[in-house]
Amino acid sequence: MTQQQASARLRRSPEQVRAAVHQAAVELLCDPDGEELNIPAIAARAGVNHTSVYRRWGTLDALLADMVTTRLERDSPLKDTGSLRGDLLAWAEASVASIRTPEGRALVRAVILSMPNNTRAQAERRQQFERRMRSIEKIRERATARGEDPPPLEQILDQLIAPFYIRAVFGIDPPADGYPELLVDRLLHA
Amino acid sequence: MTQQQASARLRRSPEQVRAAVHQAAVELLCDPDGEELNIPAIAARAGVNHTSVYRRWGTLDALLADMVTTRLERDSPLKDTGSLRGDLLAWAEASVASIRTPEGRALVRAVILSMPNNTRAQAERRQQFERRMRSIEKIRERATARGEDPPPLEQILDQLIAPFYIRAVFGIDPPADGYPELLVDRLLHA
Repeated sequence: MTQQQASARLRRSPEQVRAAVHQAAVELLCDPDGEELNIPAIAARAGVNHTSVYRRWGTLDALLADMVTTRLERDSPLKDTGSLRGDLLAWAEASVASIRTPEGRALVRAVILSMPNNTRAQAERRQQFERRMRSIEKIRERATARGEDPPPLEQILDQLIAPFYIRAVFGIDPPADGYPELLVDRLLHA
Repeated sequence: MTQQQASARLRRSPEQVRAAVHQAAVELLCDPDGEELNIPAIAARAGVNHTSVYRRWGTLDALLADMVTTRLERDSPLKDTGSLRGDLLAWAEASVASIRTPEGRALVRAVILSMPNNTRAQAERRQQFERRMRSIEKIRERATARGEDPPPLEQILDQLIAPFYIRAVFGIDPPADGYPELLVDRLLHA
């Protein structure tokens, strides 16, 4: 590291460090040669001391969960299109576009990797699920306010969200054309 | 370890060792207090030297993939019910019953954890996907042989398989009644 780089690192604010650590985690998840994802590797790539990463996040799960929440909130399309169908379609189009990119697939993998793996952490998993579903809940609330009758959250989970997750996990590309419309129409006409 | 246990360990055949290692991996995945899943922890629980686990499977991913394949082939319901709808329903009923148990949810998590995490391993992921879909392909082939017209594999993936995976990942229990019928009817009447 040059002296300039070292002093640049010293000048970073906590928020800049957080962004650098998130970015390093995404890059490692996208790395074609990436093997093991762990805190020392993320810290090294971000140019941060790994003890400060442990101090701030505690575990890899917590770091990934924080990274995913931040990115999803930044990327979630929540524009009001004026109808339930339009809002769901906007959500599905953004999700299809996202899982066509290595970063998007990496984010889905990170959601799953950040799920607490032990069976006792049911409350924590439920909380993460609700965080993931926040944008869908907003779409449902807007629909209800318009007098529309949105499907229950669990049906949206099964018919709209689950296909994106499983395709990202197995690396199965969505059909080239009309996939968002297909899923939304299946959901609304079930 | 008593001398009796030590000599019992020495007498185990390669197949018995394999079964003990698989069982240890499942138990660790189900452990309410389980934190980190890795080869040394699995080997210790199976009473096997970790170097022989590394020698046999190489990586945790490979071990989990082998364990999942073996268990799914053992548990996959492939009975011929005489109709496509009956076969899919039998598959869905077994899957619902499975993800209601900690071991079943652990198996789904293991499928996902065993997916190669780097972006280059697309061929390997595709292969694992095809292994996972083998029982569904058999159901499709039998339907075609009967003169029925089964939905494409990707549609079965989206509408029948994806909901089980996502519910296992997030720990969202399936509805108490009629869930297998609901998913199969949605699939066949789409």
